[in-house]
Amino acid sequence: MNGGQYALLDAYMRKRMRDCDSAHDCEHVYRVLGVALDIAQSEQDVNIDVLIAACLLHDIARPDQLRDHRVCHAEAGAKKAKRFLKKNGFGNAFARHVADCVRTHRFRKGGEPSSIEAKILFDADKIDVCGATGIARTLFYQGRLGEPMYACLADGSISDGTGDKAKTFFGEYKYKLENIRERLFTSRGREITRERQKTADAFYQSMLAEVRASREKGCALLEQALER
Amino acid sequence: MNGGQYALLDAYMRKRMRDCDSAHDCEHVYRVLGVALDIAQSEQDVNIDVLIAACLLHDIARPDQLRDHRVCHAEAGAKKAKRFLKKNGFGNAFARHVADCVRTHRFRKGGEPSSIEAKILFDADKIDVCGATGIARTLFYQGRLGEPMYACLADGSISDGTGDKAKTFFGEYKYKLENIRERLFTSRGREITRERQKTADAFYQSMLAEVRASREKGCALLEQALER
Repeated sequence: MNGGQYALLDAYMRKRMRDCDSAHDCEHVYRVLGVALDIAQSEQDVNIDVLIAACLLHDIARPDQLRDHRVCHAEAGAKKAKRFLKKNGFGNAFARHVADCVRTHRFRKGGEPSSIEAKILFDADKIDVCGATGIARTLFYQGRLGEPMYACLADGSISDGTGDKAKTFFGEYKYKLENIRERLFTSRGREITRERQKTADAFYQSMLAEVRASREKGCALLEQALER
Repeated sequence: MNGGQYALLDAYMRKRMRDCDSAHDCEHVYRVLGVALDIAQSEQDVNIDVLIAACLLHDIARPDQLRDHRVCHAEAGAKKAKRFLKKNGFGNAFARHVADCVRTHRFRKGGEPSSIEAKILFDADKIDVCGATGIARTLFYQGRLGEPMYACLADGSISDGTGDKAKTFFGEYKYKLENIRERLFTSRGREITRERQKTADAFYQSMLAEVRASREKGCALLEQALER
């Protein structure tokens, strides 16, 4: 890929991402690209041009999914990416390969990533949900949807997130963030997440301790105050 | 205050807070109340009933400010609180005292808190912007407004937040979260924030390191890839 081709893809991505949320903006795309190129250094026979294009274009259908949650941004993004690449002089095989990467970058939909480029994109995208960055992006996203930090159990205590019925930050941490590492395909990806996982876990544990401490002490003192 | 009076204020607060955001919900109110009662243990001559009422009612005008940002929720909340208390059989002096606490709980508006109850409410409310809880609430709030994590400087590097012109998470951390401790009135309040400040600082530093690492390594590798 030459500088002009990169600039073309970059401009298209920036235009598409203009209407995105704080968790899925151009900077997310650049971080994914940076981490993907890092992982690629440790893998054999990576088509770097495919990888760069796939990273730049992986979230171009996010605005469509934001407007209508029935749209899968991975499926829709794959189609859009293929169309854009073919229209702009990239070969058929290249466009198909990039589209495959985009389609399989999502957790639950679109099938498993098969090529090494698809696996690297998957890992780099998941790494951006790890560590402090991942915590921040999750909170941005949940704040936008108005989801709460935690749920309260029947006895009035604060749930740690395990088995929460409604969406909460603690629930999202337990269900998704805590175990992302195990889902990664590349060893360099897992290496990058090692430190990040510690950061995320420390943050979650601190938050749980803070809110539980104020709840427990507060409830006991309130009971005393109302009994006077 | 007896249990019935508490239940009355609690029900009014819960009704008012129904339309609030993830950062300012009933659970924020209960955490503030819990921390305030904790701080009150270390202070002399605290009117606990005033403190409980002021904590429960301090954010009742948040929905008004969310709908129209020209409304100051502290000013509007003070008026609403006074009216509600007087209508429900609380004395004039009590209602005025609670309203004073509510009016001065905000950082920049409504004057300085004067009574010990007002100072405790101020501290307890600020403590909920400290630590992991404070980071989470800030991110919830910024995600709702679509504000980004950080800004990029002219040379393409990532700003640490100092002097950011537009609102960013790093900017909010540097401008507000980093120095909250110094603004507190009570020594027990400052004691509670000591551990929390470390948690918040560690999180901010980790996030800055994560995003800068992917930026720096990514830019160098991208340059190499495009020069081939």
